[in-house]
Amino acid sequence: MKLARSPLAPPDFPDLPTVQGMVSATHSLGMYKTTRNDLMIVHFPEGASCGGVFTRSLTRSCDIDWCRDALEVSEGKASTLVVNAGNSNAFTFEQGLAKNEATLDAIATVSGQPKSECYLGATGVVGVPVRPGLIADVVPEVWPRLTPDTPWLDLASAFMTTDTFPKGAGRQVKVGDKTISIAGIAKGSGMIAPNMATMLSYIFTDAPLSPQQCQWLTSDQTNKSFNCITVDGDMSTSDTVMLFATGAVELSDAEMEEHFTAISDAIGAVFLDLAQQIVRDGEGATKFIEIEVKGAINKQSAKTIACSIANSPLVKTALAANDANWGRIVMAAGKALEPLNRDSMAIWIGDVLVAEAGQRAVSYDEDEATRAVSGQSIRIVVDVAVGSESATVWTCDLTHGYVEINGAYRT
Amino acid sequence: MKLARSPLAPPDFPDLPTVQGMVSATHSLGMYKTTRNDLMIVHFPEGASCGGVFTRSLTRSCDIDWCRDALEVSEGKASTLVVNAGNSNAFTFEQGLAKNEATLDAIATVSGQPKSECYLGATGVVGVPVRPGLIADVVPEVWPRLTPDTPWLDLASAFMTTDTFPKGAGRQVKVGDKTISIAGIAKGSGMIAPNMATMLSYIFTDAPLSPQQCQWLTSDQTNKSFNCITVDGDMSTSDTVMLFATGAVELSDAEMEEHFTAISDAIGAVFLDLAQQIVRDGEGATKFIEIEVKGAINKQSAKTIACSIANSPLVKTALAANDANWGRIVMAAGKALEPLNRDSMAIWIGDVLVAEAGQRAVSYDEDEATRAVSGQSIRIVVDVAVGSESATVWTCDLTHGYVEINGAYRT
Repeated sequence: MKLARSPLAPPDFPDLPTVQGMVSATHSLGMYKTTRNDLMIVHFPEGASCGGVFTRSLTRSCDIDWCRDALEVSEGKASTLVVNAGNSNAFTFEQGLAKNEATLDAIATVSGQPKSECYLGATGVVGVPVRPGLIADVVPEVWPRLTPDTPWLDLASAFMTTDTFPKGAGRQVKVGDKTISIAGIAKGSGMIAPNMATMLSYIFTDAPLSPQQCQWLTSDQTNKSFNCITVDGDMSTSDTVMLFATGAVELSDAEMEEHFTAISDAIGAVFLDLAQQIVRDGEGATKFIEIEVKGAINKQSAKTIACSIANSPLVKTALAANDANWGRIVMAAGKALEPLNRDSMAIWIGDVLVAEAGQRAVSYDEDEATRAVSGQSIRIVVDVAVGSESATVWTCDLTHGYVEINGAYRT
Repeated sequence: MKLARSPLAPPDFPDLPTVQGMVSATHSLGMYKTTRNDLMIVHFPEGASCGGVFTRSLTRSCDIDWCRDALEVSEGKASTLVVNAGNSNAFTFEQGLAKNEATLDAIATVSGQPKSECYLGATGVVGVPVRPGLIADVVPEVWPRLTPDTPWLDLASAFMTTDTFPKGAGRQVKVGDKTISIAGIAKGSGMIAPNMATMLSYIFTDAPLSPQQCQWLTSDQTNKSFNCITVDGDMSTSDTVMLFATGAVELSDAEMEEHFTAISDAIGAVFLDLAQQIVRDGEGATKFIEIEVKGAINKQSAKTIACSIANSPLVKTALAANDANWGRIVMAAGKALEPLNRDSMAIWIGDVLVAEAGQRAVSYDEDEATRAVSGQSIRIVVDVAVGSESATVWTCDLTHGYVEINGAYRT
């Protein structure tokens, strides 16, 4: 099934900066009927610091198990990253473990680095047996092709599945006459939910961050980006966000201290940009929807209510049809079972106040409300009137396209 | 939008027994463009015992607030039930309260019974203002028409919204030469989730049950029926299940004791029949799906995992397309975050073992698996391999029809 590019996609793949201290290559393992590449190998010749956040699913893939253990054993050091599409290596048990063991052996042989510094990722159908040598057999052939010049577009394309466009984001930060570069790539379009779901995202920087800084930044920024997006409320077996810092650009302690916030913010901007691109590629999506809940007792409560609205199939189908059925927003807020004051609640769609003081707004006008939900980008604000904390999440609408894609995925 | 009758609907509305001790009438308030009835009034001339279970939503309608209070104030006594379709009276605040006050006054006047013995229900769009006199104005006209002979089909039809068929179920229990009759009606097709969602169900019996027995039976049987069904994971502002017992058939204490289990079981069968009919009318449904999770640490955990599978859009779209993509069942089980043993799990679709010991079954055959998901009725069993408790839930598939109906509901 060939999918049309999402109408919410950015016009072009962005021009991303080169990150010093990394080499990479892509390859075709033949997992797809087309000639596309489906393997990506990234190597850090001088090593890198890294941090990771992974799916909480209890049926997570053995790649996830491996990465969590490796991060701990290596104390946040990275030498190589290997990611394939076409088979998620989830629910493959001994075969999956055998595949990973073989891959790690092959990488250790060519790199001369400990296995625990090699991270693995895989995405695709769950539960399909894999050949142990799937990747290991081609490592000797791909390794000599590693180069600092692989286009980011090639890397971003090598691990797409139902994605309709490759996703990349970059930023640069000036530190005196030096330039810190940050570039990230991601895949994901369905099974996206808070706490992430079939999404893989890898962000690279040449800033000299410690493993501790990498882990803190990955956790903190994931909470503000990838964990604030939802397409269908499903959580995958493979979700991964990893940040690698090569340290190829050297900064003094004083420079680092002065510019840490700027670097963190730039990394955060890359996380958020990639997260929002995943929503923009939500399966069948025709609208990008931002939902802010304010007046909540705390941030977590605000986020729970916002996600309840964002995940409601009734809200999402109404928005798909340009139907300002805001009563469904009321319903979805109520089912979150978080504190709210029903009789003081207010709701805005765009700049149109549709509900206030627990009922339809006095100024309510159906035509205005319909206009507010008819664009390609919709912002909904709900004041739950019990406190002063807020949270924002991003989602997309639920359309025939979603049903179509997900009924046809394997065929 | 005129909806075609669900392909999963029973061939005919069942022949339901007469319940002694109740009179009823239906009427058209003109809430719909067609001439259909949209108001139902049921009266118990000699009173009745009753119990109720209601939505936990924090944006519940004022009808729900009223019923909860009335049950307490009246200590489970009932005189009248008034239900309308076309406006849910949720998020209508003062107007909604004024409507209910006027309705209750009008009913108290004609019945001569306390307001607290009158129960209210409403279903339809959320947040649309209502006229206080909507029902009150017609009570004097409808009341004299109350009769024991109103066909159950008329009652069941009077509070339908997006339902494609009226729902009724009945049972009888012989106690010596006496017959206890039970008849129930329900509406609901979308926004159905565990803990119920836009569903109203009223079950009537002429058994001499006490208010305490009614409440216990309603709570217990709802847990085994209406709280085990899900269409889209949304929970409504108006969900209600109420059981009314007129006591018109008199039983001695000895008869009651001897036959209580039989009567309870018959009432339970009516609850379950109605609940499953709601799933069979799931918006856009083309398949009836039973999901049993076994080998769980306790019943609640089993139910949570089963609901996670039943509510997964990815599982539901795959089944709609006859795609035996059982990896999505693995995914949905894992995201429930309940104890399971990934590496020992097993999954059956119908009688086909598709996964065992944490991976694809050795005997797996794609054609067999496809055949197993291709029927109109699908049974999925998941053994999570950590205990011995089980739970079963019922749901339907997610199709283009769902998107269509919910984008067009108000138009």
